[in-house]
Amino acid sequence: MAKADIIFLCTPLGAIESTVTQLLPHLAPNAILTDVGSVKGAVVRAIAPQWQNFVGGHPMAGTAESGLDAALSGLFVGKPYVLTPTDSTPATAVETVAELVRSLQSQIYYCSPEAHDRAVAWISHLPVMVSASLIAACLSESSPEILNLAQSLASSGFRDTSRVGGGNPELGRMMAEFNRDEVVRSLHAYRHQLDQLITQVEQSDWNSLQQRLTQAQIARPPFLSDP
Amino acid sequence: MAKADIIFLCTPLGAIESTVTQLLPHLAPNAILTDVGSVKGAVVRAIAPQWQNFVGGHPMAGTAESGLDAALSGLFVGKPYVLTPTDSTPATAVETVAELVRSLQSQIYYCSPEAHDRAVAWISHLPVMVSASLIAACLSESSPEILNLAQSLASSGFRDTSRVGGGNPELGRMMAEFNRDEVVRSLHAYRHQLDQLITQVEQSDWNSLQQRLTQAQIARPPFLSDP
Repeated sequence: MAKADIIFLCTPLGAIESTVTQLLPHLAPNAILTDVGSVKGAVVRAIAPQWQNFVGGHPMAGTAESGLDAALSGLFVGKPYVLTPTDSTPATAVETVAELVRSLQSQIYYCSPEAHDRAVAWISHLPVMVSASLIAACLSESSPEILNLAQSLASSGFRDTSRVGGGNPELGRMMAEFNRDEVVRSLHAYRHQLDQLITQVEQSDWNSLQQRLTQAQIARPPFLSDP
Repeated sequence: MAKADIIFLCTPLGAIESTVTQLLPHLAPNAILTDVGSVKGAVVRAIAPQWQNFVGGHPMAGTAESGLDAALSGLFVGKPYVLTPTDSTPATAVETVAELVRSLQSQIYYCSPEAHDRAVAWISHLPVMVSASLIAACLSESSPEILNLAQSLASSGFRDTSRVGGGNPELGRMMAEFNRDEVVRSLHAYRHQLDQLITQVEQSDWNSLQQRLTQAQIARPPFLSDP
């Protein structure tokens, strides 16, 4: 490691800090550290005070698969790669990481660790919690006959809505653990929307429900820029 | 219509009853009526007293598209087709509809209208409400900068989880309107699961959260029999 100009920390979130602690004695003085964790505030707060040339990063590409067999050529092409420098991050370190990221043909976004964490809570962490709760709710059906029928009749709608909720449990836990405040905030906003919808259904307020669903239909496309 | 042996009612849910009322004077005495509505209790309760040879049906195939251009050869092959005869439905009427359904190579399921409505509330109607609420929650973000970043970073996870919530608002409204009791029941069960999850995150009870996510991961595959 003493010869490395840049080191990418690609461990799970929970292992980043301890990995850095072990690495520090072996680094060249100007070595740049960057990570690929899906939460940035907690990581930057833990690492930046220990190593000046640290640039928080989050490449938003990948599949549910892991291991070398899951490697994909062109995985990062056209995908977002977020860099979260702070006021004290050296500009040269940021530019060096950005240059490498550009060579992957990723789309670079710069923002604060806090803005990153709030944004990904909405579009990545909250969906996991919402989707897992859907699976849990179906499982709460007490009649085996109905549950069996529901399993037989489930099709693409259920498949898609439940996909991220049925994903890697360790990853879901880490998202919530390391981005707790933003995940809680997004969950409360979600429950508020859900409560309003439940009230509309309970009160048979069909016009308001249809308006709500129309707003959702209109609001969704701007989130689908991903190729 | 006086010469028809079987008539498939393929109107939106809200137009089935009035269509039947207009049809009745023109039907041959032994004509069989069947519908394709996505809710069965309300439809069967409205139509069965008016026409003995009525068989409630729900073919569970289709895309988000509509119109003749959306026609697909083999659309029904291997897909569920639910028939919901009651104690007073003539067996010959059920068998005649079933024969036609088998010729489409659908997979026939027989159940009561009530069992159908409870099962589809879980796997079809609840996901729409859960998914629409996710979109609404994201939209409630008050910072334009964060909302913009969230839209830029959203990828397949958000795309899939939000898909059915961003679908046809009239259809979503009809599901809730015609299957109100079961939709409310499923929504309350869902909110209960969501509240438990929120408490676990708020209390930093990460082991319980991971257990919950593990249960969701294990529970999902039995719902994915759809080819």
